[in-house]
Amino acid sequence: MMLSTAGTSSIEEVTAARGTQVWLQLYPTNVWEVGRAIVKRAEAAGSPAIVLTVDLQEGSNRETLFRAQSVDKRECSACHQSAYTGYAKGRPRAGAGGFAQYAARKPMLSGLDLSKVTALHPSDMNWDFVKRLRDTVSVKLLIKGIVTREDAQIAVEHGVDGLIVSNHGGRAEETLRPTIESLPDVIEGAAGKIPVIVDGGIRRGTDIFKALAYGATAVGIGRPYDWGLAAFGQPGVEAVLEILRRELRTIMRQAGTTSVDKITRNYIVGRLA
Amino acid sequence: MMLSTAGTSSIEEVTAARGTQVWLQLYPTNVWEVGRAIVKRAEAAGSPAIVLTVDLQEGSNRETLFRAQSVDKRECSACHQSAYTGYAKGRPRAGAGGFAQYAARKPMLSGLDLSKVTALHPSDMNWDFVKRLRDTVSVKLLIKGIVTREDAQIAVEHGVDGLIVSNHGGRAEETLRPTIESLPDVIEGAAGKIPVIVDGGIRRGTDIFKALAYGATAVGIGRPYDWGLAAFGQPGVEAVLEILRRELRTIMRQAGTTSVDKITRNYIVGRLA
Amino acid sequence: MMLSTAGTSSIEEVTAARGTQVWLQLYPTNVWEVGRAIVKRAEAAGSPAIVLTVDLQEGSNRETLFRAQSVDKRECSACHQSAYTGYAKGRPRAGAGGFAQYAARKPMLSGLDLSKVTALHPSDMNWDFVKRLRDTVSVKLLIKGIVTREDAQIAVEHGVDGLIVSNHGGRAEETLRPTIESLPDVIEGAAGKIPVIVDGGIRRGTDIFKALAYGATAVGIGRPYDWGLAAFGQPGVEAVLEILRRELRTIMRQAGTTSVDKITRNYIVGRLA
Amino acid sequence: MMLSTAGTSSIEEVTAARGTQVWLQLYPTNVWEVGRAIVKRAEAAGSPAIVLTVDLQEGSNRETLFRAQSVDKRECSACHQSAYTGYAKGRPRAGAGGFAQYAARKPMLSGLDLSKVTALHPSDMNWDFVKRLRDTVSVKLLIKGIVTREDAQIAVEHGVDGLIVSNHGGRAEETLRPTIESLPDVIEGAAGKIPVIVDGGIRRGTDIFKALAYGATAVGIGRPYDWGLAAFGQPGVEAVLEILRRELRTIMRQAGTTSVDKITRNYIVGRLA
Repeated sequence: MMLSTAGTSSIEEVTAARGTQVWLQLYPTNVWEVGRAIVKRAEAAGSPAIVLTVDLQEGSNRETLFRAQSVDKRECSACHQSAYTGYAKGRPRAGAGGFAQYAARKPMLSGLDLSKVTALHPSDMNWDFVKRLRDTVSVKLLIKGIVTREDAQIAVEHGVDGLIVSNHGGRAEETLRPTIESLPDVIEGAAGKIPVIVDGGIRRGTDIFKALAYGATAVGIGRPYDWGLAAFGQPGVEAVLEILRRELRTIMRQAGTTSVDKITRNYIVGRLA
Repeated sequence: MMLSTAGTSSIEEVTAARGTQVWLQLYPTNVWEVGRAIVKRAEAAGSPAIVLTVDLQEGSNRETLFRAQSVDKRECSACHQSAYTGYAKGRPRAGAGGFAQYAARKPMLSGLDLSKVTALHPSDMNWDFVKRLRDTVSVKLLIKGIVTREDAQIAVEHGVDGLIVSNHGGRAEETLRPTIESLPDVIEGAAGKIPVIVDGGIRRGTDIFKALAYGATAVGIGRPYDWGLAAFGQPGVEAVLEILRRELRTIMRQAGTTSVDKITRNYIVGRLA
Repeated sequence: MMLSTAGTSSIEEVTAARGTQVWLQLYPTNVWEVGRAIVKRAEAAGSPAIVLTVDLQEGSNRETLFRAQSVDKRECSACHQSAYTGYAKGRPRAGAGGFAQYAARKPMLSGLDLSKVTALHPSDMNWDFVKRLRDTVSVKLLIKGIVTREDAQIAVEHGVDGLIVSNHGGRAEETLRPTIESLPDVIEGAAGKIPVIVDGGIRRGTDIFKALAYGATAVGIGRPYDWGLAAFGQPGVEAVLEILRRELRTIMRQAGTTSVDKITRNYIVGRLA
Repeated sequence: MMLSTAGTSSIEEVTAARGTQVWLQLYPTNVWEVGRAIVKRAEAAGSPAIVLTVDLQEGSNRETLFRAQSVDKRECSACHQSAYTGYAKGRPRAGAGGFAQYAARKPMLSGLDLSKVTALHPSDMNWDFVKRLRDTVSVKLLIKGIVTREDAQIAVEHGVDGLIVSNHGGRAEETLRPTIESLPDVIEGAAGKIPVIVDGGIRRGTDIFKALAYGATAVGIGRPYDWGLAAFGQPGVEAVLEILRRELRTIMRQAGTTSVDKITRNYIVGRLA
């Protein structure tokens, strides 16, 4: 399980409630010391892995959301902080309170000096940043958001421990390229040296099967458990997980696969020419 | 003609009514002796071929059916046995009566000791099972449900007499891969050593033509005769068969093919590049 | 211009009205002497080319028409001869009057001994038939309905003077293969020895351009002039022809093509890989 | 910025209003001296580049417009000059006033002897025309409307200074080939000797990114600024430009591209085979 820096519960609370450690999905902000402090807090909470998020650089073109705002006449600030209001209107930092007000609702950002923070991401993040982070993180370091062979290779060279192929749910860019199509490239780039996880579009046990068949070490899910949570709370999340497990068992049985490690690329066929 | 183990008439009745022998589509159950007894009963009834079904391993994700259940408020048990009720609700063995109650409606399972039977399929069916079955079956043994080149090759090595490319009507898995696309692979795997039959999606005489053009020895149909039966009874089934024959004749005439054995791969063309 | 054997005017009438000769689209019937007589009548009327039709072998599966019959409660025989009634009902020869009654409305069949004729096509037409026809026809002989490279080659070997790539408007078979995709194969088969014409789907001047670019010598149209005729009579047909000419001029000008013979395969591009 | 010969403001007015020179999009008419005079007027107004338009040869098949005319019962001449009326009806020169009346609304055509002009384009434009124009134009000469490798090569040989890949918004022909698919061919033809610009379908910052990734030197837009202008006047145009800039920044940030010249073909990936 991976907890976001922008989550509404702290890593200590989640770890206590869960009874075992969680990974931290890191948004390092534009101030090095702030990002470093988040990492150290996660490590202190026993987090075995820090996952640097690079698939949602500051801002994205969420037009459906912006358009919905024009229809929904309610004032966002009636429910949300003003920073969110600005974000929803396509002007993420236009709120009166700025980043600090946004941060006030984020336990992982509490107690930090946010006076110079303007964004969850450095605007100039590059491989030197990864190197510096690698030297700082004492547990496993993964990068979430790698979608090309070349970046996978460079990540390996920078001592990264694992990759998550992700496009932030497909709403951070406009390529329409699904992660399942990026996955083989990234696996090729990783060359077996580090594990490759994939998320984005995993909705079925058969999706899990396909991702594993391409060579993914594991898969991640986002919306499915949110849907279960929104509909039924904890039992909804448990139902989602059980559905995925059952569907995976069903397709494995049907495909004659007796264990997960036997789900190999042999199961992938192209279309008739 | 092939009779299912789960059919609602016995092989003796069907053979008598038809006046000639039928193949048996075998669901061997999870108890070897039960499956063996079904085979021997079919052989005693003169069945020339036992067809092991491998395209529907225990359970499948029939969501359309499950969803329809939520809409249809009638109690399934008003018409069906409770085992079916559980199956329709996605919990195949949840019925109070278990497999025995399900079996009570299946003449091919009558008179057998079903006390240890929990499913139509062994949960651990593998090629050793095929070998054991091959040694048991004294008539022809075919496998229904082969969709890959590799499995076709292994089947040949195990002394299987023929293959049926099938995906159980497309509802047992979620690949969306039609059997017509699996057919060339399986034919390649069979390498001309044993005949390859195909079912799934055969709805037209032109479908028959295409399957034969790819090299199928014959085709099987399922739903078309069911539709005819449901609509008009025996005349409906006869009408379906005549429609298929007429359509095949029409396309053969149009294609300039004077006999079925001249329907070769030459008739297949790709799309313009 | 090409007149069908099944047309509702005779070749003599059409030639007189037009003031110049027309080609004859030949349906030879299943009786050699009848087909021969039609050919000789056309030759006597000055027809410069006999076009053997092979793209609609006896009967086709016109389900849309058959289905419409179920909805349209009027008796076909109120307007049409009974032979047509049978045809529309999917039983082409079921009418009481048989072929003779059908033929009574076809001037090109008048005066012939039709007592042994049961169909417009021989049911056993083959290349020997073409050879015999070739020896009989003293003017040009073309075949309409060639869609493969192999048949084009065999036609050349049999001394045929030209080919028309056609699938009888796409309603005589169910391949969904458009003639524009068959055209390159046929042109390759003809190898420049005889001209290749194409019809089917020519609806625009740009369609003409594309067909010529693939190497067609000319194109044929069917439905477009029918539509014009049905809507406005002769002026409608003239309008259709003028629209096609104008559209061809427009695309030629746009493509920088100064004459029809400069419309070459260079104009064809594939899709971006 | 590029001003059309058919614009409703003169190049002198636009240059004065803008405070800097603009390119002239040249429609040379069918009379050489008229085209030459337009070129010289543009050069006198300081225009640094003359762009010969070849993507809309006289007339195009604008059926949607023609069809709309049948629905809109108002007389075109209530608002437009009669020449436009004829054009809208598919008979461009049918108006009583002819080209002169059309030209009366075009400042760039004022003061010229239009007595022999019947069209914006020579009907016989060819590469000799380009050569003659090249010898006449003392500033940069570009051609707008090149969509093939071969034409790009010939343009380079004729001393043209740059190319604009364009299909006049896709409404001048019926190939449905988007300019983004023509772009690589033209870039290959230009072989790095002259810059290649592309317009047509540029609606997003991501479209700009893709065009640059293929190797375009720059992109052009047409409809987007028209939409902004029609909706909100000058602020609308400014909003359109700002949206494009913002979207380009967003995708560059997301793609990890720190400057426009780093947007290379490496960013282009094909589909999974």
